[in-house]
Amino acid sequence: MDASAFRIELSPLNFLHHAAQVMTERTAVVHGDVRRTYGELAERVGRLATGLQAEGVERGDRVAVLCPNVPAILEAHYGVPAAGAILVTINTRLSPPEIEHIVRDCAPRVLIVDHELADRVEAIDVGGAEVIVSQDTGAPGDPYEELLASGSPERTGPWDGHEDDPISINYTSGTTGRPKGAVYTHRGAYLRAHGAALETGMSPRTVHLWTLPMFHCNGWCLPWAVTAAKGTHVCLRKVDPERIWKLFTAERVTHYSGAPTVHLSIVNHAKAQRLEQYVTVPTGGSPPSPTLLARMQELNLHPVHLYGLTETYGPAMGCSAHPEWDELPVEEEARLLSRQGQTYNGSDVVRVVDEEMRDVAADGETLGEIVMKGNSVMRGYWNLEEETAEAFRGGWFHSGDIGVLHPDGYVELRDRKKDVIISGGENISSVEVEQVLVRHPAVYEAAVVAMPDEKWGERPKAYVELKADASLTEEELIAFAKEHLARYKCPAAVAFGELPRTATGKVQKFVLRDREWSGRKKAVN
Amino acid sequence: MDASAFRIELSPLNFLHHAAQVMTERTAVVHGDVRRTYGELAERVGRLATGLQAEGVERGDRVAVLCPNVPAILEAHYGVPAAGAILVTINTRLSPPEIEHIVRDCAPRVLIVDHELADRVEAIDVGGAEVIVSQDTGAPGDPYEELLASGSPERTGPWDGHEDDPISINYTSGTTGRPKGAVYTHRGAYLRAHGAALETGMSPRTVHLWTLPMFHCNGWCLPWAVTAAKGTHVCLRKVDPERIWKLFTAERVTHYSGAPTVHLSIVNHAKAQRLEQYVTVPTGGSPPSPTLLARMQELNLHPVHLYGLTETYGPAMGCSAHPEWDELPVEEEARLLSRQGQTYNGSDVVRVVDEEMRDVAADGETLGEIVMKGNSVMRGYWNLEEETAEAFRGGWFHSGDIGVLHPDGYVELRDRKKDVIISGGENISSVEVEQVLVRHPAVYEAAVVAMPDEKWGERPKAYVELKADASLTEEELIAFAKEHLARYKCPAAVAFGELPRTATGKVQKFVLRDREWSGRKKAVN
Repeated sequence: MDASAFRIELSPLNFLHHAAQVMTERTAVVHGDVRRTYGELAERVGRLATGLQAEGVERGDRVAVLCPNVPAILEAHYGVPAAGAILVTINTRLSPPEIEHIVRDCAPRVLIVDHELADRVEAIDVGGAEVIVSQDTGAPGDPYEELLASGSPERTGPWDGHEDDPISINYTSGTTGRPKGAVYTHRGAYLRAHGAALETGMSPRTVHLWTLPMFHCNGWCLPWAVTAAKGTHVCLRKVDPERIWKLFTAERVTHYSGAPTVHLSIVNHAKAQRLEQYVTVPTGGSPPSPTLLARMQELNLHPVHLYGLTETYGPAMGCSAHPEWDELPVEEEARLLSRQGQTYNGSDVVRVVDEEMRDVAADGETLGEIVMKGNSVMRGYWNLEEETAEAFRGGWFHSGDIGVLHPDGYVELRDRKKDVIISGGENISSVEVEQVLVRHPAVYEAAVVAMPDEKWGERPKAYVELKADASLTEEELIAFAKEHLARYKCPAAVAFGELPRTATGKVQKFVLRDREWSGRKKAVN
Repeated sequence: MDASAFRIELSPLNFLHHAAQVMTERTAVVHGDVRRTYGELAERVGRLATGLQAEGVERGDRVAVLCPNVPAILEAHYGVPAAGAILVTINTRLSPPEIEHIVRDCAPRVLIVDHELADRVEAIDVGGAEVIVSQDTGAPGDPYEELLASGSPERTGPWDGHEDDPISINYTSGTTGRPKGAVYTHRGAYLRAHGAALETGMSPRTVHLWTLPMFHCNGWCLPWAVTAAKGTHVCLRKVDPERIWKLFTAERVTHYSGAPTVHLSIVNHAKAQRLEQYVTVPTGGSPPSPTLLARMQELNLHPVHLYGLTETYGPAMGCSAHPEWDELPVEEEARLLSRQGQTYNGSDVVRVVDEEMRDVAADGETLGEIVMKGNSVMRGYWNLEEETAEAFRGGWFHSGDIGVLHPDGYVELRDRKKDVIISGGENISSVEVEQVLVRHPAVYEAAVVAMPDEKWGERPKAYVELKADASLTEEELIAFAKEHLARYKCPAAVAFGELPRTATGKVQKFVLRDREWSGRKKAVN
């Protein structure tokens, strides 16, 4: 840490410190009937930080959280780093064995779990972690509230570590089926949050409805961005379109975020009506279709198309809309907006390169790999030096995504090097699904590829070769998968038959992929 | 420089790189009939950088600019640092001896001067600096355009130095009468620009009219902020309200900045009319009065009150308006907005402290000095180690301004430790004025203090004791001052007579100050 008067280490903790100082009485959090000001949020965060320290949490320790979008997980985004610890938010859709794998990998000192998800944790080995079940009551007697009561209400100050210290670990399925923990830093989170607030036009008048899971890449750093803008967080236990439409009006929501799947469920609800206020909708996972875009605009909902990976703090790039695009026919506007764009915070560089790391021509045709460098790139994978070195070869982060560079400087995704399926904004490792399928006694070999899906963007499809004389139905195999995998990872369809192979016997997955995507311009959705 | 994939050094150069990449065809600069896109601006900046290098400019060299708000000074904010050099923008209101002092202090390799100001430079010793006169034609044959033509049109990439390297030097009159150069860094400029863009709600739809001098604390870092938001810069040779009202409508201006003096001249013009668009008006120098605020709001102009010093990159603090304040009577709103507020970019800390550096009570009454730490504080004074150490004593930058901390966390200025007069947003060192006055053969001793002024906030008033038997009129003394000082620094009034002194003979300036400010709550304006 530099002790000079002209430097303060960058950390999103400073955003809360600042919001609590200048907008003490402004509403920070809405959760059902509970409303808390920034002063109150800062007090609860101070209590969480010191409460965790009283439980033995030390600098650099991990604290894991398994919660839907309730105040506890928002508070953890500040309280855990304020305690000097590293936040690990776990995907609430994971199965107990998947959760156990993550908990073993990061070995948290404390695991805060929402009461609705407590059963996922009961059956697993949490190592030495102390499990604290939040009843989400906000009232005395709730173990989470007791943790807060044990702490001190003093507000936290600026981060006293180095800005390159880890603030969080986010697990990604990756390509190998073995979840890897992408490490985010205080500096990276600060700059991303600041960039996102500017790109999505946030201000103290911002009211952000939490449709996007906060466990997902730290909610795209928006738990920090909304606070940087001194806006209001509206919590939401689950994506319930009826409730969402009520909150849109009752709380005068100005922003909500998520994948097109979420937007589809919202715009197609019976209560959908044009809103008075302009609503900005950071959108990731897959681009909004022309139909969706048109319908959203009718309702005064305006998507900002973003793109990124777990390794890049969630969306590191955005398709910054040119004001002139407003005047275009919606099909044309959607085509332009469907591109992944460019880095949006001005402190990063994105390139599309060939195998020798040379920039491809900006012709919208030549394929290359999307590589990135800058403050939007993870520090590395947790405890995985080799995998980190591989991802960072040549000094650039290799996304594994294949794209083109358009003459206007915007990147468009076309294909994927990695064996990953992106469904409703969630990554699914096809290898992980295959490894489960082959454990079924009737299965000889399995190949899982993405198939296009109107609602989810992509869904996993399994091509399965059975053992000689064995028999198995699609339903039986899917049921088997559901015992071992989060539901969203399970195949949506199964095709039985001999698999295409190379001369040496290796399964040719590209043949299966081509089959699913034939007749399309892109092999991603 | 850290060469890892997860860090890129922060620099405002990255903003232009980014804007040119994603908004290539969008209008970056408007200057009379000249309109240039971000692609064209980036090309001109690349040419300026390499042209300067061809003139022998090397890393760390200074390049000085003496220009009104024309494209050349905007381009210098990017082209000079892109050449690896340090930008020195000189106040265009200074007299030749004052300019000479600055040029000698920073010893620039190149001095770019606008043709209207060329005579200020002709008479002085510029050391080894090469003087390039810009005719502001944008056409071949113009020496500035020849400089660009000698360079390469390649766009500049990210800053390849360290983010703590100097990007500019801004001279302040300070307290001693000897101008001191406050050194800004790439990191500080990046973070300030980003913070200002967020605080003032900038976006690609932003059109910023350059009423604020860009020579003034690098135009409050807005040459970088507007580009960070991918907005449009509208140049303006001088503050001409008739032209300003034309541009408001013709260019659909969304932002302009300056001191209340500037706003007064605008709102009181015959062409003033309510604008269709909401205009955000970053305002510094002194707070907007209730009358001014009400009149501005009628016209759809909305001030954002900012406060800072040359040493803090211009306005480091802002009186962030609470949305609820909209509903208040204008007198009450103006009272709240007249406060200096708090740091607005979340990576700094501002305190009000007593002599032992203890925080004063947040009671809105206890006086203390405003001290600051963080990325909004200069790196130090150019080549003045002792003065830097004095300003940074105890690890905090001492503003010399006396204020109170209100219970809501907002700071309000009440008095000034430093012997500085702030007139129309410009600092005047009373010591510097006194030193000139005593050079008149009739003057025995002089004391200059601020007097309140409705238009300028403050103006210098001279109390003068003449030599025995000498005689001199107010007009004669002011005329004498104008020969040696920028006009804005010259006394607006002179009172002759014996000066109040301590027992040891020292002039008691506080007695004179008190006389001017009696009956007021604050001794600053």
